[in-house]
Amino acid sequence: MAASNVKVLGAWPSPYTMRVRIALNLKNVDYEYLERNPERGPPELSELIHKTNPVHKMVPVLIHNNKPICESLIIVQYIDEAFTSGPSILPSDPYDRSVARFWGAYIDDKVRNDTSYEEAFEKISKGKDFFGGDTIGYIDIAFGTNLAWVRVFEKLNLVKLLDETKTPNLYAWSKKFCSVPAVKAGIFPETDKLLEFVKTLIAKYDGLLHHRENV
Amino acid sequence: MAASNVKVLGAWPSPYTMRVRIALNLKNVDYEYLERNPERGPPELSELIHKTNPVHKMVPVLIHNNKPICESLIIVQYIDEAFTSGPSILPSDPYDRSVARFWGAYIDDKVRNDTSYEEAFEKISKGKDFFGGDTIGYIDIAFGTNLAWVRVFEKLNLVKLLDETKTPNLYAWSKKFCSVPAVKAGIFPETDKLLEFVKTLIAKYDGLLHHRENV
Repeated sequence: MAASNVKVLGAWPSPYTMRVRIALNLKNVDYEYLERNPERGPPELSELIHKTNPVHKMVPVLIHNNKPICESLIIVQYIDEAFTSGPSILPSDPYDRSVARFWGAYIDDKVRNDTSYEEAFEKISKGKDFFGGDTIGYIDIAFGTNLAWVRVFEKLNLVKLLDETKTPNLYAWSKKFCSVPAVKAGIFPETDKLLEFVKTLIAKYDGLLHHRENV
Repeated sequence: MAASNVKVLGAWPSPYTMRVRIALNLKNVDYEYLERNPERGPPELSELIHKTNPVHKMVPVLIHNNKPICESLIIVQYIDEAFTSGPSILPSDPYDRSVARFWGAYIDDKVRNDTSYEEAFEKISKGKDFFGGDTIGYIDIAFGTNLAWVRVFEKLNLVKLLDETKTPNLYAWSKKFCSVPAVKAGIFPETDKLLEFVKTLIAKYDGLLHHRENV
């Protein structure tokens, strides 16, 4: 497909941006990718983000045929409905689709404040390779894009989730998820690169705190 | 349609329950309605709610062919996809559908903490009778089911939103919404009945506070 009619405004550390890019890869859709830098620039891109997502002013934004779509899981659903050039991301059965949407909402609402990943995986996956069954789907995309951050939090000794012995199913799923070509395609950041980014954030935040104290 | 294969577990003051019942009415689907009482009983129903919505343990729950679906806007989408016996609730175009989903999420996330209803209506409705166009749709259902509570808050002098002079479009929409047969069908509570319910809640909460103070 021509790249010109599909654009993604995003940021590489953002799990939400990753969701959109993985979904487009799964559908074999070429797209132009515009990366916001850590200083929330360049200014032209910042303007474009404000113009296309005036309510939240955040990435990711998908622009398809000059129409903007916002909110990562809504974008993933849009990609699934608008492009038939690849496997389905949501199940075809309305009930199964409602289950996928339920867990998608649950992941954004709860899982990030929760450490019961393994329990959730056991409940949802029912022994399959992926949450949605034998191939990558909506819940995997919603859930799996947090893995890069999980690994960074593990390196910082804040959590321990992906343990081959204690949580073998979740561990196996994380390996499978990251080996899917649509995910591997330069989207999923190296743990060390993301760790450096997080350290910069922490340093910046520390600086801000001290600056405030000195005012 | 036979009532036996569709059940709604709900509570009459709940805007979320109203959404589900309005969607079923729009689709002309008969259903069995099981009402949770203010004491969160009867016990059999409470058990059924815990069994069918083990994650959130809340109403509404839709049970269709013995399968439970949870989260009101996910249920409304399910009803739209599973029953073709009435008008579409979401638009048929994927882009328009993504816009409806965006505002649905926005309503649940933001609007209840915000008073910019009129501004939102102007932006979304584009001069039509309903948010979705000429007939009631997904955004109307998501948004309009808060109206009963808005009226109660107005009676309690907490807000003033529905003003014929200051917010004529929103006012006209609220009248139109409540006159739709699917909404009128005993679902939308009388303001005075809901006001009594809210007063009981306030009294109970006051009682709890005093009880705590006396401990």
